[in-house]
Amino acid sequence: MKIRFYNARILTMLDGENILTGEVHTDGNSITYVGDATDKAGEDAKAAAFDREIDCGGNLLMPGFKNAHTHSGMTFLRSSADDLPLDEWLNTQVFPYEAKLTADDIYKLTRLAILEYLSGGTTAVMEMYLTPESIAKAANEMGFRMVQVGGVNNFSQSVELIEKYYNTLNGVSDLTSFAIGIHAEYTCSRELIGEIAALAAKYRAPVYAHISETAKEVEEFRGRYGMSPVAFLASEGLFDYGGAGYHLVHTDAEDIRILKERGIGVVTNPGSNTKLASGIAPISDYLEAGLTIAIGTDGPASNNCLDMFREMFLTTGLAKLRENSACAVPAFDVLTMATRGGAQIMGLPETDAIAPGKKADIILLDLMQPNMQPLQNIPRNIVYSGSKSNVLMTMVGGSILYERRENIDDSFHVGESASEIFRAAQEVRDRILG
Amino acid sequence: MKIRFYNARILTMLDGENILTGEVHTDGNSITYVGDATDKAGEDAKAAAFDREIDCGGNLLMPGFKNAHTHSGMTFLRSSADDLPLDEWLNTQVFPYEAKLTADDIYKLTRLAILEYLSGGTTAVMEMYLTPESIAKAANEMGFRMVQVGGVNNFSQSVELIEKYYNTLNGVSDLTSFAIGIHAEYTCSRELIGEIAALAAKYRAPVYAHISETAKEVEEFRGRYGMSPVAFLASEGLFDYGGAGYHLVHTDAEDIRILKERGIGVVTNPGSNTKLASGIAPISDYLEAGLTIAIGTDGPASNNCLDMFREMFLTTGLAKLRENSACAVPAFDVLTMATRGGAQIMGLPETDAIAPGKKADIILLDLMQPNMQPLQNIPRNIVYSGSKSNVLMTMVGGSILYERRENIDDSFHVGESASEIFRAAQEVRDRILG
Repeated sequence: MKIRFYNARILTMLDGENILTGEVHTDGNSITYVGDATDKAGEDAKAAAFDREIDCGGNLLMPGFKNAHTHSGMTFLRSSADDLPLDEWLNTQVFPYEAKLTADDIYKLTRLAILEYLSGGTTAVMEMYLTPESIAKAANEMGFRMVQVGGVNNFSQSVELIEKYYNTLNGVSDLTSFAIGIHAEYTCSRELIGEIAALAAKYRAPVYAHISETAKEVEEFRGRYGMSPVAFLASEGLFDYGGAGYHLVHTDAEDIRILKERGIGVVTNPGSNTKLASGIAPISDYLEAGLTIAIGTDGPASNNCLDMFREMFLTTGLAKLRENSACAVPAFDVLTMATRGGAQIMGLPETDAIAPGKKADIILLDLMQPNMQPLQNIPRNIVYSGSKSNVLMTMVGGSILYERRENIDDSFHVGESASEIFRAAQEVRDRILG
Repeated sequence: MKIRFYNARILTMLDGENILTGEVHTDGNSITYVGDATDKAGEDAKAAAFDREIDCGGNLLMPGFKNAHTHSGMTFLRSSADDLPLDEWLNTQVFPYEAKLTADDIYKLTRLAILEYLSGGTTAVMEMYLTPESIAKAANEMGFRMVQVGGVNNFSQSVELIEKYYNTLNGVSDLTSFAIGIHAEYTCSRELIGEIAALAAKYRAPVYAHISETAKEVEEFRGRYGMSPVAFLASEGLFDYGGAGYHLVHTDAEDIRILKERGIGVVTNPGSNTKLASGIAPISDYLEAGLTIAIGTDGPASNNCLDMFREMFLTTGLAKLRENSACAVPAFDVLTMATRGGAQIMGLPETDAIAPGKKADIILLDLMQPNMQPLQNIPRNIVYSGSKSNVLMTMVGGSILYERRENIDDSFHVGESASEIFRAAQEVRDRILG
């Protein structure tokens, strides 16, 4: 499938805030041309027959957002238990219902989440949930890009299972992969952490984990081990081959030094940290230290939406409140986190920009909406006033999976109608929550 | 014009979180029937010929959002100067450019903002900006509901002008009105405040003002007057006939006691307070004290979007962070602020609910989108995962002004095309900012 986007503004994310005007061509799952098509390469590209030519009407092409931390299958709990303390929420409203989920339930619930990612301009997610095989099936069938992460802890999954997933869920699809991970420092024994570190060493692979999400968990951890979670996990060798921490809200200067030294990335989850009252991560400090930063929504039971526009505003907004400075974490840094930072941390550098040879993970944003007018500084406009209502199209690996249409069932091209995916998810929710 | 909405879910905002299923009928600018239409009143209502019948497809009708504090004409500055300290921003990026605006410029810029309100489900705003006559013209021509507030201070407008606007801009249209107001305690002399208090007494009218937005302004004010802005303004008699304060971020227990005792409402502006690093208002304390609370976006140069969905999430989210409690400010309280609280503070009680005899200021929210699925608790869903992308229709005073369509120019029914309104606003921006 060869597609030509023309009459476009293009934010490549390779040239700062600069915006080109011109064309982007794709062939199969790759970008083949970016430019104004008046050069020889452009003429050659145009001479090739396209399967589809799309007039972008002056709207903006940019790399899709990377949602670097989520639990997609939790869609069934959205709005079921809000405004509750974290402990009560987890123990009475999450764990008992999760225990009833089958792999097929999670397959259906993940499909609903994928529709939400697509309608919000997200082209790849980093996922941690209970049944990696059925989750990979959902993503592959729908054509969506997903990096799964193991979530082993003292109560579920095992080192053997993580190794099995690592060997069976990698290399089978261009769209999906599996990375080594643990749930969190406070749900894993020291022995288990050591075994996962050994597994990472065996495969020279990065490791991912929830780290230092709440003040309470960090305080209790220090009580047990006499050091911070970051210091402990690093000293156990967990990140000897890189990786990243999710949340990282409650860290200190020594933690930041370790994150930098070991090349450990940060995935911030400001929507979840806000709704669950976990606190505000020190993003200004992370930026200043030169850490690689990505942004994630966390799961739909703790956010509750899977919307990178909300997360982008919160990433800078909460930093401004925390630092008591309107200058903190400028908009373009946030846009970089939501695209290139995510791609780097998720191991998808081939999706981080619009350039020939890169994967065609592209979105088209509608600038002809009131919230984007007048045209002034478009990157800032995306971060401060953008909305998923501005997403006109989402392409993953060269396939257009979402195009905004009046009828929801005309909007998605994922092999099944949105209505049917809604119905299946509702059925799971109704059976489990009653 | 008689309109019948059928096959709807209906959140009337008069019966807690309860959601009816059935029909809403409007005639002229009023709601004439709400129910399942199987009763006699419903049969009678249906027997009347409708000009239009709208199948809501199971989606949700609810009262439109009230944006209780904004400066619409500042659309020309959106994204022109972000990530700057407040003082530098105001003095180098706002005031010099505002000085160049004509009344006709502000008319055009306000029209752009009204498109944004409508596309986000906002049916009325409380406006404070420079040229009330041209602003009222914009609202009336487009059919939009607007309460303007005087913004007199030591440098612009005057008591005489406020009185003139009060007498000439009230009673001329069902859609627009004008209320007495001052810009802020820190930009008005004691004498000016006294004169406005006398004007309010003359007309037995409420007064509105920015109050206690930043810590610095409160500290300096205390240095000058030896008391808080709230205590001072109340002691000067400014609120003897009610009114409300915008922002009210930096207040103490004594302030809250005064606000309660004098019946002064609170309009919170969390998006602006976040972006400008002004702080987090004590909304939990205000709720506990039983104050009337409304929500506003503030202007598009300080937010930067005019989106009540963002504000609703921030109202509860920031309160949760401030109180270190995921239970703070439950979702339905937020929805009440965004609808009934706004209507009360803005003096528009006839727009606060869906019931016979109320004004037909109604929105239709699309529940058949991924972010609203599965259906569970719809009010919470609106606050925690709702988006302007869910707004299917916005009706003001019985007229449908917005219906989501693929083509932007088919979406608005405001007497001029959106494209033309965009073009006019861009021209103003280009002339003034270059």
